[in-house]
Amino acid sequence: METPYPKPISPTQTRIGWIGIGVMGAAMASHILSAGYSLTVYARTPSKASSLTSQGAHLADSPQQLACQSDIVFTMVGNPQDVKQVVLGTNGILSTLNPGAVIVDHTSSSPSLAREIYTSAREKGCWSIDAPVSGGDIGAREGKLAIFAGGERSVVEWLKPLFDLMGRVTYMGQAGCGQSCKIGNQIMVGGNLLGLSEGLVFAEKAGLDLRKFMGAIRGGAAGSMAMELFGGRMIDRDFKPGGFVEYMVKDLGLGVDVVKEDEDERVVVLPGAALCKQLFSSMVANGDGKLGTQGLITAVERINGN
Amino acid sequence: METPYPKPISPTQTRIGWIGIGVMGAAMASHILSAGYSLTVYARTPSKASSLTSQGAHLADSPQQLACQSDIVFTMVGNPQDVKQVVLGTNGILSTLNPGAVIVDHTSSSPSLAREIYTSAREKGCWSIDAPVSGGDIGAREGKLAIFAGGERSVVEWLKPLFDLMGRVTYMGQAGCGQSCKIGNQIMVGGNLLGLSEGLVFAEKAGLDLRKFMGAIRGGAAGSMAMELFGGRMIDRDFKPGGFVEYMVKDLGLGVDVVKEDEDERVVVLPGAALCKQLFSSMVANGDGKLGTQGLITAVERINGN
Repeated sequence: METPYPKPISPTQTRIGWIGIGVMGAAMASHILSAGYSLTVYARTPSKASSLTSQGAHLADSPQQLACQSDIVFTMVGNPQDVKQVVLGTNGILSTLNPGAVIVDHTSSSPSLAREIYTSAREKGCWSIDAPVSGGDIGAREGKLAIFAGGERSVVEWLKPLFDLMGRVTYMGQAGCGQSCKIGNQIMVGGNLLGLSEGLVFAEKAGLDLRKFMGAIRGGAAGSMAMELFGGRMIDRDFKPGGFVEYMVKDLGLGVDVVKEDEDERVVVLPGAALCKQLFSSMVANGDGKLGTQGLITAVERINGN
Repeated sequence: METPYPKPISPTQTRIGWIGIGVMGAAMASHILSAGYSLTVYARTPSKASSLTSQGAHLADSPQQLACQSDIVFTMVGNPQDVKQVVLGTNGILSTLNPGAVIVDHTSSSPSLAREIYTSAREKGCWSIDAPVSGGDIGAREGKLAIFAGGERSVVEWLKPLFDLMGRVTYMGQAGCGQSCKIGNQIMVGGNLLGLSEGLVFAEKAGLDLRKFMGAIRGGAAGSMAMELFGGRMIDRDFKPGGFVEYMVKDLGLGVDVVKEDEDERVVVLPGAALCKQLFSSMVANGDGKLGTQGLITAVERINGN
């Protein structure tokens, strides 16, 4: 299959656009700037772009203006609705994107929307890659994100020099497969965090020394990256985000609330992920949506009357 | 506090009794025999003891006969009811155990029963240690179990040469704390296995390559020892036990079905562990109680109509 351009990606030849400069998006875009690429940024709140413009980024007035002068447009926005609007909306990227250009959506979004964008992009002679990430703000800052890519394999390979600036990319399959990988990832993260939270709440009630408890069990099947990353923070009541609780509600929702949007979409029954989503939702309802996901232990404590 | 004996444990001076020679118990007892200790075994089905008697173990006719000629009695039986009967029953160990002797219960059992046994043992001038293990049949065979010990610290230290033959012991606190640690461990294992199972079922339905999926996510918060130990076996439909599903039902039940047996006992609300227990119970109901715990994925598949 043809690649977007016969020429390889390079700082002198490839013009990059970036939409969405929250904590993670800004850190990821910064790596591209640091590598010498020309970067244009669109932000609904232009003042938020100051750290990037001081690094040499240009500001665009609108997504369309950004799109028509970019060879590759990255998006890292909040949720599927935002993605849909900024890419497919009347004033969206695709309305002005040049044939051969590529959209890379880093937002954690829905597989069916990724497929819809892919189809619309191809109709305009453009390409799209769904490329959600895992690793949180620290992974974004350190350029150590896991990137799950769906779409044309040759396009993902062509993009690799840029992905390499942000982390490690894995090609997962056709359009939507990157998003499915991220959702599957979050389902597992949820299970690990729930087991960790409930195990610690139980151990606390049983009067165990929690660090000794984790030390005794971490080498066996109870051990997890969640324990290594978040066990100590749960004990220390350090709930600073990493990944926001409210994003976990969204991500798990993409797994358990799948609507039959097209013929391919199949509902999957996941009682554990549904429970995790409920507990994370209870935190949002209690005003804790901006805590880090390790705050899940507070939801388990709350139902125990703590 | 006084230790059971002023003299250290040694093959020439310490007589060992062992009750319960299932897959794990037999492997653990075998390590003690191999280290040169004199070992007496009681088995309801004497033929099951043949591998140990061929290694030099003696056979006792009853738990009482075994107890009166042992300095230390290990128990590794099925469930709390068995422990209660073999230790506290009219014909149980404590009826003939000599003052100063020690009971070490390796069964995964209830913290309150461990405390009851401790109190009864002390009334007779004996000692008891609750010491459930984690690591399955492979850990037992290779002498690499994690051992969680509750009771008198000095007694646990005194026993260390024997625990070292079986794995790595951690002193968790007073009587019952070893059992609480094991239950907390199982709560986390359950969460990890549930997240892993649901993530794989979701990924399968989404059409992902499951090994590529695990490879893409294992370095992040989705990673777990459960994934490393069991992910491949789930994909390969290898459900041979390690740990039995039916034991997981028991262990999780000790966490979520806690009855107010004494003033210390507090009910802990653990919706994730309760869900895990329900799913494992559905497997027992379907005749799959003797599968390994990684078979949990079949319960998730079943509710999805596979």
